Amino acid sequence: MANFINSHCTTTDYSDLRSLQPGDRVRAYGMVHNVRLTKWGGFLILRKAEGLLQGVLQNEQTVVVDEKGATVQVNNISREMAVAIEGVVNEAKIKDPAVAYSQMEVAVDKIEIISRPATTEVLDTNSLKFGDEDAMLRFKFDNRHVTLRNPRDMAILRVQSAISQGFAQYLLSQGFTQIYSPKIVSEGAEGGANVFKMDYFDKQVYLAQSPQFYKQIGVGVYERVFEIAPAYRAEKHATSRHLNEFISMDVEMGFIKGQEDVMELEMNLLRNIMKYVSEHCAHELQLLNADMPAIPDQIPAYRLSECHELLWNEHLTEEDHRGEDDMAPEEERAICKYVKEKYGSDFVFITHFPSQHRAFYAMDDPEDGKLTLSFDLLMRGLEITSGGQRMHEEADYRRKMVERGMDPEKFHFYMDTFHNGMPPHGGFAIGLERLTACILNIANVKECSMFPRDINRVAP
Amino acid sequence: MANFINSHCTTTDYSDLRSLQPGDRVRAYGMVHNVRLTKWGGFLILRKAEGLLQGVLQNEQTVVVDEKGATVQVNNISREMAVAIEGVVNEAKIKDPAVAYSQMEVAVDKIEIISRPATTEVLDTNSLKFGDEDAMLRFKFDNRHVTLRNPRDMAILRVQSAISQGFAQYLLSQGFTQIYSPKIVSEGAEGGANVFKMDYFDKQVYLAQSPQFYKQIGVGVYERVFEIAPAYRAEKHATSRHLNEFISMDVEMGFIKGQEDVMELEMNLLRNIMKYVSEHCAHELQLLNADMPAIPDQIPAYRLSECHELLWNEHLTEEDHRGEDDMAPEEERAICKYVKEKYGSDFVFITHFPSQHRAFYAMDDPEDGKLTLSFDLLMRGLEITSGGQRMHEEADYRRKMVERGMDPEKFHFYMDTFHNGMPPHGGFAIGLERLTACILNIANVKECSMFPRDINRVAP
Repeated sequence: MANFINSHCTTTDYSDLRSLQPGDRVRAYGMVHNVRLTKWGGFLILRKAEGLLQGVLQNEQTVVVDEKGATVQVNNISREMAVAIEGVVNEAKIKDPAVAYSQMEVAVDKIEIISRPATTEVLDTNSLKFGDEDAMLRFKFDNRHVTLRNPRDMAILRVQSAISQGFAQYLLSQGFTQIYSPKIVSEGAEGGANVFKMDYFDKQVYLAQSPQFYKQIGVGVYERVFEIAPAYRAEKHATSRHLNEFISMDVEMGFIKGQEDVMELEMNLLRNIMKYVSEHCAHELQLLNADMPAIPDQIPAYRLSECHELLWNEHLTEEDHRGEDDMAPEEERAICKYVKEKYGSDFVFITHFPSQHRAFYAMDDPEDGKLTLSFDLLMRGLEITSGGQRMHEEADYRRKMVERGMDPEKFHFYMDTFHNGMPPHGGFAIGLERLTACILNIANVKECSMFPRDINRVAP
Repeated sequence: MANFINSHCTTTDYSDLRSLQPGDRVRAYGMVHNVRLTKWGGFLILRKAEGLLQGVLQNEQTVVVDEKGATVQVNNISREMAVAIEGVVNEAKIKDPAVAYSQMEVAVDKIEIISRPATTEVLDTNSLKFGDEDAMLRFKFDNRHVTLRNPRDMAILRVQSAISQGFAQYLLSQGFTQIYSPKIVSEGAEGGANVFKMDYFDKQVYLAQSPQFYKQIGVGVYERVFEIAPAYRAEKHATSRHLNEFISMDVEMGFIKGQEDVMELEMNLLRNIMKYVSEHCAHELQLLNADMPAIPDQIPAYRLSECHELLWNEHLTEEDHRGEDDMAPEEERAICKYVKEKYGSDFVFITHFPSQHRAFYAMDDPEDGKLTLSFDLLMRGLEITSGGQRMHEEADYRRKMVERGMDPEKFHFYMDTFHNGMPPHGGFAIGLERLTACILNIANVKECSMFPRDINRVAP
């Protein structure tokens, strides 16, 4: 006789805090984030995925039951126990988002202890105190398997998750196909620098720096593709802006008339991501005191050379960067400040970077062969995207690779893709952690990675 | 003056074949999948992401324009050109899904050539002919950057993409948070065997075999988490069932009462994935002649020992497997056949595997310490999931690791998570490629990976 799992199954009733109404009787599972006993009873702060729920305990009315079903004193309750609380929902008296989720609290009449930590001295993530920010961050990352339980850190990664969903859902609505390309690759997309090498049985392989080749191949198959996946850069610097492993949100689209099509797609995409995040993470944004970025109907765009000129002529930078082939950090900050004041935009495109500063696959500007049809998108002083139109003819690839001393034969399958025909196409990539940090105004991008990897850190 | 990209932007009008109606005038971009000229005109098969669209050409009415705007003869059109066709939509005369998408075709009055391959002799993915299946597959994988353009291969990966979206969307609706855990790890989750090693600056690290530790940590933070990400197994066999890099769809949930909660979640999840795929990939399923699996209201479940007994007593296997600590392949096939006939189910759970056969984190069965609260899910003769309840007390982990000769200190951060309190929890993982292969009845799982990686293959 087969067993049928339904017949003896009691699925956990998952309670969503967002639907609580005054007067509801509720049974809510969660972790004891904090407990404070008073003469008349006390408070139990229950931690759930969506946030904290305040339970009010009353000496006479609150029954506590342990794992074996025995009734015990309320002072047995301690932090990081897994519990179920039962009671009636009331309008909360304290409406601080750091203390309680939504506007509700629960008058608790029953607490069931489900499991407990090995110690009553668990790490208190609410009261980490360090002299300097660096030591604080180091401690947090060293203990991230527990410090993630802090509501602020939880909220950051909830927003990150929503950004990636907003990204996927908008692109699916626009006819894009999601792809899963390999991360073990035989050649690095950007040439040999900054790749992690690895032994793969008897071969030497690399971890993909980006899905560039594969997303272009994907355009020959599906016209429009996107991917959300890890990418790897073996950069040796340990800064607040870099991760050695990050989540790359990649887009590539075919049948474009120019890079403007790609820029317009990105603008609409960002607008829809912000909408999705605002709708799904209202509590998290409030808790993190986030100021959602402004995207005007049209994001201003400057050619790199125009931008250098503008900033120098308007005395907005200390140094003269005219003629340089990239934006200086002071320019990135200055142009963002400028467009925010002038156009109310938290975003600005910089276009037409010099060819020698961009990857070989960038399309040359037909009006000036020294330039490329490429762009960066800056947000609040930081570059969050590189993108542009790519070449689509095999002969152009061959010419440009030879010019750069690259061997086309090493990229046989990539070259063969163009040999077999490709539409005009372009795309861009957004670093998920960096976009999260920019939206939430978080200084160190590592706080937007669940378990950040840098030159010094591969654990936890 | 800033440029505003909208002002000189002409976004590609993306035409979705699914919305075509007779009498519509349409402009559709795509690749020339095939072209056949006749005395009176001919046929142009346009390939788009959703499938093939048949265009009917007529000598007098069809104008062809090349990249420079010059009018040219229709016999200039060749395969894998990127084109735009214009014309009026009609009910299709031929309704073979391998030839035309939906029920519509287009009477083409204009063809614009947008770009062209380097050769008119492009690889014809429709007429690959090989003596044996192995040589055929090898050729296909060697040239996958182009052979993916075959509608059948395109359809497989479109279904794969939809499976992952159905997975994510159902779990999001059930309060799960999507996580992105690191793939560069300092310790393998399952111990030392079958992991890829890598140099990471001055450290030796591993590629994650599974996000097991991180998804459990995630339960302490978010109660319910899922992840869709690559996973790595350095297995040396090259079979039709294994990939060295695959997409693991992982689920972990807290506050369960037993493994039945996890099994019920998986059953509902699979039901919703099938629904999503049926709704979003009707054309692909038709093209691939797919027989969507049957999920009855309740998926039958057998204890491993019961299953051995049943199959032997009913004379359904050739050999006696009673007392063995896993299912033999002939048993997997036999029990699937049996439940299909008896209960109309394409799925069956096998539960209560012996402890020594499962990972150390599996929860022991309180009624028989030699067994674990663990399960496999079989589908059409193949295991597609392993799952179960996990231990949640630090002392249990310590005991079991020591029993197995593992050093708990090497897993400090994992142990510390339980030290700081965890709810009862469990979960499972589904291999995306294997589930795709099972749903579509595809014999070789590599056909369900965009760019498969095995012991012999790291390119394209």
